[in-house]
Amino acid sequence: MTPSHDMTREGEVMYDLIRDLYPICRSITGDGVRKTLAVLRKHIPLEVHEVPSGTKVFDWTVPKEWNIRDAYVKDRKGSKVVDFGQSNLHVVNYSVPVHATVPLEELKKHLYSIPEKPALIPYRTSYYKEDWGFCLSHSALQSLSGPEYEVVIDATLKDGHLTYGEFVLPGETDEEILVSCHVCHPSLCNDNLSGIALATYLARSLQPLPRRYRYRFLFIPGTIGAITWLALHEAATARIKHGLVVACVGDGGSFTYKKSRRGNAEIDRVVEHVLRASGQPYRIREFTPYGYDERQYCSPGFNLAVGSLTRTPHGEFPEYHTSADDPSFVRPEHLAASLAMYRSVMEELEANRLYLNTNPKCEPQLGKRGMYRHAGGYGGGADRELALLWVLNLSDGTMSLLDIAEKSGLAFQVIRAAAEDLLAHGLLRPLDPQQSNSR
Amino acid sequence: MTPSHDMTREGEVMYDLIRDLYPICRSITGDGVRKTLAVLRKHIPLEVHEVPSGTKVFDWTVPKEWNIRDAYVKDRKGSKVVDFGQSNLHVVNYSVPVHATVPLEELKKHLYSIPEKPALIPYRTSYYKEDWGFCLSHSALQSLSGPEYEVVIDATLKDGHLTYGEFVLPGETDEEILVSCHVCHPSLCNDNLSGIALATYLARSLQPLPRRYRYRFLFIPGTIGAITWLALHEAATARIKHGLVVACVGDGGSFTYKKSRRGNAEIDRVVEHVLRASGQPYRIREFTPYGYDERQYCSPGFNLAVGSLTRTPHGEFPEYHTSADDPSFVRPEHLAASLAMYRSVMEELEANRLYLNTNPKCEPQLGKRGMYRHAGGYGGGADRELALLWVLNLSDGTMSLLDIAEKSGLAFQVIRAAAEDLLAHGLLRPLDPQQSNSR
Amino acid sequence: MTPSHDMTREGEVMYDLIRDLYPICRSITGDGVRKTLAVLRKHIPLEVHEVPSGTKVFDWTVPKEWNIRDAYVKDRKGSKVVDFGQSNLHVVNYSVPVHATVPLEELKKHLYSIPEKPALIPYRTSYYKEDWGFCLSHSALQSLSGPEYEVVIDATLKDGHLTYGEFVLPGETDEEILVSCHVCHPSLCNDNLSGIALATYLARSLQPLPRRYRYRFLFIPGTIGAITWLALHEAATARIKHGLVVACVGDGGSFTYKKSRRGNAEIDRVVEHVLRASGQPYRIREFTPYGYDERQYCSPGFNLAVGSLTRTPHGEFPEYHTSADDPSFVRPEHLAASLAMYRSVMEELEANRLYLNTNPKCEPQLGKRGMYRHAGGYGGGADRELALLWVLNLSDGTMSLLDIAEKSGLAFQVIRAAAEDLLAHGLLRPLDPQQSNSR
Repeated sequence: MTPSHDMTREGEVMYDLIRDLYPICRSITGDGVRKTLAVLRKHIPLEVHEVPSGTKVFDWTVPKEWNIRDAYVKDRKGSKVVDFGQSNLHVVNYSVPVHATVPLEELKKHLYSIPEKPALIPYRTSYYKEDWGFCLSHSALQSLSGPEYEVVIDATLKDGHLTYGEFVLPGETDEEILVSCHVCHPSLCNDNLSGIALATYLARSLQPLPRRYRYRFLFIPGTIGAITWLALHEAATARIKHGLVVACVGDGGSFTYKKSRRGNAEIDRVVEHVLRASGQPYRIREFTPYGYDERQYCSPGFNLAVGSLTRTPHGEFPEYHTSADDPSFVRPEHLAASLAMYRSVMEELEANRLYLNTNPKCEPQLGKRGMYRHAGGYGGGADRELALLWVLNLSDGTMSLLDIAEKSGLAFQVIRAAAEDLLAHGLLRPLDPQQSNSR
Repeated sequence: MTPSHDMTREGEVMYDLIRDLYPICRSITGDGVRKTLAVLRKHIPLEVHEVPSGTKVFDWTVPKEWNIRDAYVKDRKGSKVVDFGQSNLHVVNYSVPVHATVPLEELKKHLYSIPEKPALIPYRTSYYKEDWGFCLSHSALQSLSGPEYEVVIDATLKDGHLTYGEFVLPGETDEEILVSCHVCHPSLCNDNLSGIALATYLARSLQPLPRRYRYRFLFIPGTIGAITWLALHEAATARIKHGLVVACVGDGGSFTYKKSRRGNAEIDRVVEHVLRASGQPYRIREFTPYGYDERQYCSPGFNLAVGSLTRTPHGEFPEYHTSADDPSFVRPEHLAASLAMYRSVMEELEANRLYLNTNPKCEPQLGKRGMYRHAGGYGGGADRELALLWVLNLSDGTMSLLDIAEKSGLAFQVIRAAAEDLLAHGLLRPLDPQQSNSR
Repeated sequence: MTPSHDMTREGEVMYDLIRDLYPICRSITGDGVRKTLAVLRKHIPLEVHEVPSGTKVFDWTVPKEWNIRDAYVKDRKGSKVVDFGQSNLHVVNYSVPVHATVPLEELKKHLYSIPEKPALIPYRTSYYKEDWGFCLSHSALQSLSGPEYEVVIDATLKDGHLTYGEFVLPGETDEEILVSCHVCHPSLCNDNLSGIALATYLARSLQPLPRRYRYRFLFIPGTIGAITWLALHEAATARIKHGLVVACVGDGGSFTYKKSRRGNAEIDRVVEHVLRASGQPYRIREFTPYGYDERQYCSPGFNLAVGSLTRTPHGEFPEYHTSADDPSFVRPEHLAASLAMYRSVMEELEANRLYLNTNPKCEPQLGKRGMYRHAGGYGGGADRELALLWVLNLSDGTMSLLDIAEKSGLAFQVIRAAAEDLLAHGLLRPLDPQQSNSR
């Protein structure tokens, strides 16, 4: 399960995908998401689902579909002082259509800038209150002096659909691993074209491998998309054993894992173990009910074992939710290293099984099976031999290979190899899926 | 539930009460307790109970009633060298009557002093061995030189009653909070006129408030009083959910909380949380089976959730059990601050409920209810909004508001306000009393 | 149960026993073990058991019996350059018979030395691969220059028996304490003639004492002996409540306790408590599946509460498994102190019972029973009185005397004395064996 990957190449293709998706104006509904998913279909055969506006999804309702053609603010001379054609961040996402001439004083009530970062355009939305607005750099805002301006937002907000993408890789069992990323942000690269690209290429690279788990990749608008999917697939959530929300994986910050609400789920322990074994700096954070779609997956009625593995978390890099989160902010090599980390997590989840020692009373005679050194005398055992003893001693049906690795202090790969050796000699047998399901 | 209190005034009235009670010679039985309770009845309408001598109370028997009129030691010239009229500490409490002329050598076997504190009169008792004695300063003891002395203890020890006071404030439920103080000590202020005054004014200040809990205040002689009450009300103890033994709350030392035997009861967690939130220094001590009446409430057959909140604990201030524990040792401002601390504990117990998120699958849509900011974009949520999310996420019926405050790191008051907001919007409902009873 | 022991005398007799056993060439089977047990029978009346070669014992088979008369390597001049007569370590233990003349090159494939310790003869075995070999000092190995050598191992390896010794001291109940030591090592003193001598004299010193537990002492060849005993007495293992594997107890290193696989068994807590109370430095180690026969006792199918109390652990002293582990390496005073430590452990196991407070509601009246000071006033209680209160308060059937000692911070002996006092006054009763069995 560890073919060597051409990380340079993988980084580049993910980066190219991000560049392809960057210009599209996405939102929680509308053609931006559809175009995005169409691009992704060139990479993986995902299915596109459409859910009609007005559909009740728990406490929420699928909203109207928003589409935008053009938007600008023109001064009296006819110059566009704010132009959607330059950056789709210029329009407050989900703005209602408007065409009016308004005095500067009035206009300013609809303008958003960041005084502390005067060169950057902020990203703002108004999903759940019908309103309109423009975002612009603070320096541009300050240069406005005309008495009145023509404002145009050529958008439509009407019944339509919420669109999301889903891609499922079957496995030997019907236990699932969920990988979820939000596809609602417009021209912002780290948040979250990086997550979209990673999820796509994680799916691609798992495709040729044997898989114990079924993998479900969701490309959904944030919040309302996760709520919609959960509402429409409530029964199916019982099969989700582990999950990760992918976002902000293209910057150069160290990895950050936000635990699931359970706090000690297998996904939490595996990700922490993989990060620790990487030798690189990393951060582990407890669950909080604020963040990305883990908020929904970890709501108390679901309480799924879903964490979020990012690099620098949302809100903690200065480029966050501004026009500076552009293609220059993410790097192919960071994307590639993030993909490799996700792959290591999946590999460890696949390998982290519970076994039963078939010969639990006293040690089995490893020597007669040729598994052991011959001329002995209680000399210092090598790691491999110690690993055999640890796996035999602890495989009582309650401890997984990760538990054994942590208890023994040996590397997971050494423990795993010992388990495979013992399995091949009939000294171990996997707990059958029914039993492991009931944990 | 937080009307502003005039702490200066409260401190003064408690201090005046202490001065009123100071001269009375209390013991575990007799008129001293009756007089004390009669004074308290001017402040709160407590009930006075009388339990006959000889009543079996678990392993003990209610003892005879002791009353004293006068006591002295006279030298040959007729001068009173020790005089009960000067201080009721001069007589070993519960001394049997005596009238005799004894040589100094014999007298000294009945005299008690503190050589290390030569100016102070100690407080001594002889409840369970019939004996007599006098306490005096070590310098007075050393000045005795006459060959013989007349000793008089004009006391009676005969069948009568054990007297205690009880005051109950009804609540919405029949779950109880117990506040217990010992009333057996004679002229000693911090131990325990301070506790008596605090309990009295805590009762007064809870009277006008809405109360979820019923409050039971006990004014009882130490040890035998608690044992008697428990023996006569054994079945009622099941309703006691939380309790505090009040003593030593008038000195200037920092607060000290001695945990209940359970060690992690709600009262233990609430008191510790209130002390921590106060920003003042404090001490937390594990339960020990030595101390005041928590010894009885926390005996293994009861194991009630009763701790003890004091300032400097018994035995740890030099004035303890000496004539220096007089009105100059306690201060109105310390009494007032102690009362405020007890009130904060009760307020947090009242507020610390378990709620159920009525919409546990995904987040409810706070925006449509006007509970949330409008123009969003995953910006940093203010404490109030975070508190809404925390309360919703953790209100699964297992976590109280205090649990949520501790998990989130937010102030209890912020969490409580969020819960009230969610309750008003129907997004939360209290676990019904039956369910919360069964915890 | 604490008669004073003449430690100097005890150290000397154990040391003399080691010197008597030192010359014998032991192995996992054969006359070396029989001779060893015959010597031990002069000290304790142990039973000798013989298990035929070929007996199936779990995954293993009792091997052939090995006996050796002589062995040497001769150069062309007829000089013995390696001679079994000088040290029985010179022959790889369990070597098959050989008589041949071989060139030096070929011979060297069968020679074992320790280059880093050029003066010492190593100890090597070849139990489970039929092979032959010689061990010698590295300097002797390097001085070999002849073109060829005569090698003779006059040994037999044929069907016979595995021999072990067993000694049982009955107790009041049928709950057992197991003390196990390996008897398969040839001329090596700390590993494990020290363990054999300690087990023998521990048995002797327990013989005259009252015993709640039955004690079972096993003198068995390492690994195969423990496996054989467990296979033949599988049902009996349910009665083993506590156990220790004894080895390496004659050197001057500090005590080292390796916990049982359970990690928090009573034996683990008692040994740690006794070591801590000793005031001497000590080491506690978590269980690992590598070591002595605790590997078998703690295999997952048995998971017995068996730890191992040694001084310097196997492999961690430079003399380990070399000719330097000779009588000069172990000292009578170390043996005596080790025996005393084992005796303290057994004494605490015997005393560490669970009691029930017969009067759990409120404190019993200690005063009327003369168990308490008389003239009181909440003065500082002495340890003895505090211990009475602690034992009463915590004896609710879930806490043993060791639990109470640890919770109170008082010495085990003080707690134990308080329990005996309370027991004598009828204020405590032991949990009956059935109940304590079911823990």
